[in-house]
Amino acid sequence: MSTTATTRNGVDTGQLFGTLDAIKDDPSLARFQFRARNHWIEGAHNRTTIRDFYAANQEDTSRAAEFVIDAGEPAILLGTDTGPNPAEHLLHALAACLTTSLVYVAAARGVHLTEVESTLEGDMDVRGALGLSDDYRNGFEQIRASFRVKGDAPEEKLREVVARAQRRSAVFDMVTNGVPVTVDVTTA
Amino acid sequence: MSTTATTRNGVDTGQLFGTLDAIKDDPSLARFQFRARNHWIEGAHNRTTIRDFYAANQEDTSRAAEFVIDAGEPAILLGTDTGPNPAEHLLHALAACLTTSLVYVAAARGVHLTEVESTLEGDMDVRGALGLSDDYRNGFEQIRASFRVKGDAPEEKLREVVARAQRRSAVFDMVTNGVPVTVDVTTA
Repeated sequence: MSTTATTRNGVDTGQLFGTLDAIKDDPSLARFQFRARNHWIEGAHNRTTIRDFYAANQEDTSRAAEFVIDAGEPAILLGTDTGPNPAEHLLHALAACLTTSLVYVAAARGVHLTEVESTLEGDMDVRGALGLSDDYRNGFEQIRASFRVKGDAPEEKLREVVARAQRRSAVFDMVTNGVPVTVDVTTA
Repeated sequence: MSTTATTRNGVDTGQLFGTLDAIKDDPSLARFQFRARNHWIEGAHNRTTIRDFYAANQEDTSRAAEFVIDAGEPAILLGTDTGPNPAEHLLHALAACLTTSLVYVAAARGVHLTEVESTLEGDMDVRGALGLSDDYRNGFEQIRASFRVKGDAPEEKLREVVARAQRRSAVFDMVTNGVPVTVDVTTA
């Protein structure tokens, strides 16, 4: 079974290298657009649905159903725990992206992983976001990510895979370097 | 019922102003730490659990259960749609934070909201994240957020609420300005 033979860490490396080759041949395939639609429910409770996206010169219709994610706040921040709060969702996005990046990098480099775990912490003085002081930023002052990675490779190789993942992670780039965001409002 | 009388947009404004006063009296209450724990499952599938956090000089234990969020990738990015991808989760975090911020600001300013919806789009050339080119960043080049806000207030007031929310949103700050992130790795 050649399919099984090319799968490493659950990633089809044949498809991975095929995708890279296809994009090298036709760079227009690399243009993606991702989307999220959110609606407010009550108080700190709001809900995002995610399904459609644009990729490889067309609307992608491969997803069988939409994803639904709820957000909320704990009691101390005036919510009723209808979901993780937005800053926690950002930590999740960062953890997930670093993890997927390192799993893909390891697959491409022939490293068989057995375990990847991470804990992320973000420190915040809520005087910023609550509008009580301009001396504190609204978001986290810093984020610490601690990864535990195990696999059939020397420690040096495992560390190299994590370092490479960090250099190529989409969310790590956005969270550390920032992204221009425009906000349009209609009230009709 | 004074409790009912002070609730606006699902936010207890009495508690909101009480929280602000308490922090003004004792700024140490404003120190928060949020956390996310992630473990890899297979391929692009990984899972984050979120529950404990630090707030107001102690570990908060008010949450009855942990939240579980799955991440994945669509087929074109070598996954099996086990969840939204990390960049989509970041869009969700941003939408949720802007929404909660504007709902809280409106509650504090006496604006009764009837509807808040948003669509966020992020554009990406995946040659960056796939390591094919250094001419493209790994993350979104830009994010567009389109909000529709309705409520019992003049248009100008509604726009002011959105603008204020944007100036105080934790995730908007982080996504637009960036945050220092440290990554530690253990392989034992």
